[in-house]
Amino acid sequence: MHGIWLDDGKLTLRGDLPRVELPIDEVRIRPTLMGVCRTDLELMAGYYPFSGVLGHEFVGMVEEGPVEWLGQRVVGEINSTCGRCRSCQAGRGNHCRERTVLGIVGRNGCFADSFLLPQRNLLAVPDGVPDECAVFTEPLAAAMRIPEQLDLCPGDRCLVVGDGRLGQLVARVLARQHLSPIVLGRHERKLVLLEKYQIEGTVDRTRIEEQGFDVAIDCTGNASGFEVARRALRPQGTLVMKSTYAGPLQLDASALVVDEIQLVGSRCGPFAPALAALSDGSIDPRDLIDGEFSLEDGVAGLQRGAESGVLKVLLRPS
Amino acid sequence: MHGIWLDDGKLTLRGDLPRVELPIDEVRIRPTLMGVCRTDLELMAGYYPFSGVLGHEFVGMVEEGPVEWLGQRVVGEINSTCGRCRSCQAGRGNHCRERTVLGIVGRNGCFADSFLLPQRNLLAVPDGVPDECAVFTEPLAAAMRIPEQLDLCPGDRCLVVGDGRLGQLVARVLARQHLSPIVLGRHERKLVLLEKYQIEGTVDRTRIEEQGFDVAIDCTGNASGFEVARRALRPQGTLVMKSTYAGPLQLDASALVVDEIQLVGSRCGPFAPALAALSDGSIDPRDLIDGEFSLEDGVAGLQRGAESGVLKVLLRPS
Repeated sequence: MHGIWLDDGKLTLRGDLPRVELPIDEVRIRPTLMGVCRTDLELMAGYYPFSGVLGHEFVGMVEEGPVEWLGQRVVGEINSTCGRCRSCQAGRGNHCRERTVLGIVGRNGCFADSFLLPQRNLLAVPDGVPDECAVFTEPLAAAMRIPEQLDLCPGDRCLVVGDGRLGQLVARVLARQHLSPIVLGRHERKLVLLEKYQIEGTVDRTRIEEQGFDVAIDCTGNASGFEVARRALRPQGTLVMKSTYAGPLQLDASALVVDEIQLVGSRCGPFAPALAALSDGSIDPRDLIDGEFSLEDGVAGLQRGAESGVLKVLLRPS
Repeated sequence: MHGIWLDDGKLTLRGDLPRVELPIDEVRIRPTLMGVCRTDLELMAGYYPFSGVLGHEFVGMVEEGPVEWLGQRVVGEINSTCGRCRSCQAGRGNHCRERTVLGIVGRNGCFADSFLLPQRNLLAVPDGVPDECAVFTEPLAAAMRIPEQLDLCPGDRCLVVGDGRLGQLVARVLARQHLSPIVLGRHERKLVLLEKYQIEGTVDRTRIEEQGFDVAIDCTGNASGFEVARRALRPQGTLVMKSTYAGPLQLDASALVVDEIQLVGSRCGPFAPALAALSDGSIDPRDLIDGEFSLEDGVAGLQRGAESGVLKVLLRPS
């Protein structure tokens, strides 16, 4: 079996991966399209320890498992949980202490001829949704985590910092909730993609600094994006950290106290509403696709995804 | 007029302070008892730029102002607000951009023979409340800011990091709300004060680490206290930063994202419920008094308040 293998920061296409036996309650999925995510790139950079097949964004066909799933086109939640620990019992399964995470923690990912996932993680993809949309279910769900966490109201002034893959999806999710986010980006080419959602984009920091936003969402994952988001907030405003950060972050904690700012970490989100938004066409992410590589050229695809200014890179089975 | 004057980090007792004319809508107060706060010490250390009379914790008598306040024993909110800016109009007066803050920002403080405060900031102190309790209204209000900000429920597992002045008040406020906080401290002498409120105290970090608290409140204002609070939280838990921090804080922002932690900055709180709790005796802070100095010896009093392990130091008019 082929797969894009990460070990000690080194990425290789391996053709010798064993086809393991199917555990009970799991299915084997043959991916039909896969997406490269910032987390893949951070795993490559060694920010988290992971060795195995990379990849967690996919749409695919169930090729082994119970008959009700066989041949079904699916997407799937990436956290595999124990169902028994305190987090699981409290309804915080995504924070299960025993969890494995597809291509991220203790479980081989989807950049391979096939991979495994628990049955309970699966969602059937409606026929009308093309693979090129369905493959965005996972990152769109992550964007949809924000309205799950915050009590957003129409009229709230929202800033999205970053016009990349994640910032684009977050802005579209907010616009769909009848909010009017402003996106601060660096690339006119990307900001123009927001126009059809009537979302305002700007490359001009002075337009957003000290403008007293109620909510600022940092989708950059770097210290400078965080700082811009912080300075754009009103007192008692909320800063959502939507992206992981490379290395430690230094902050003026006293200013957070004096201004009573809230910081909210935000990770995985709900798949069902994400798939619904892709299905009803209210969010169409296909304009974010910036390139496609065969799985065989997956190493090059991941390198391409790491280049500055590149939006979504997809991998397709060879 | 005498007062404890701070200029460029240097503290002096001055006897030459002018008695300024009373602005419209303000009153002149003669303090009968004053409290030393960590913020005073941070202003002395130069963490914030302030030059003027220090002090913002007081109880006193109105000696000049409209007849309805004359001779009244009062405490008072320390933020003097414009009432017109966006923050004020939105009900966030404590975050008024034009604000002055008694003895902290742009307004001489209470460590003096007399000082000024807007009438609308005043609360009359009920007769049954001794000065030694009333002088705690401001810090107790700050502790009561936490249940205002968080949606706390009985059964929530709360940790208070720090057994000092602020940690003691925070723990008592939580206990009064039928929560069962645990206080992590360093001094058996202080932890024992919590017993009469049936609050559990410990000096043993291993007892609280990775115990999955729902809420952790850092009252230490130092990086190590923050880190302990952080590690004690469950995923999706809330870390309240109740104290200002000396210098920048370095944190693992990715871990906050992965665990979806919320950080909440917390500053000034509501005076009326604080005064009510002191009045009905449900919180009696007099066991926190660790020393008293005359205003004339105020410089020594502030130095005493800065010593490690010292609880509340009071100043009394000479």
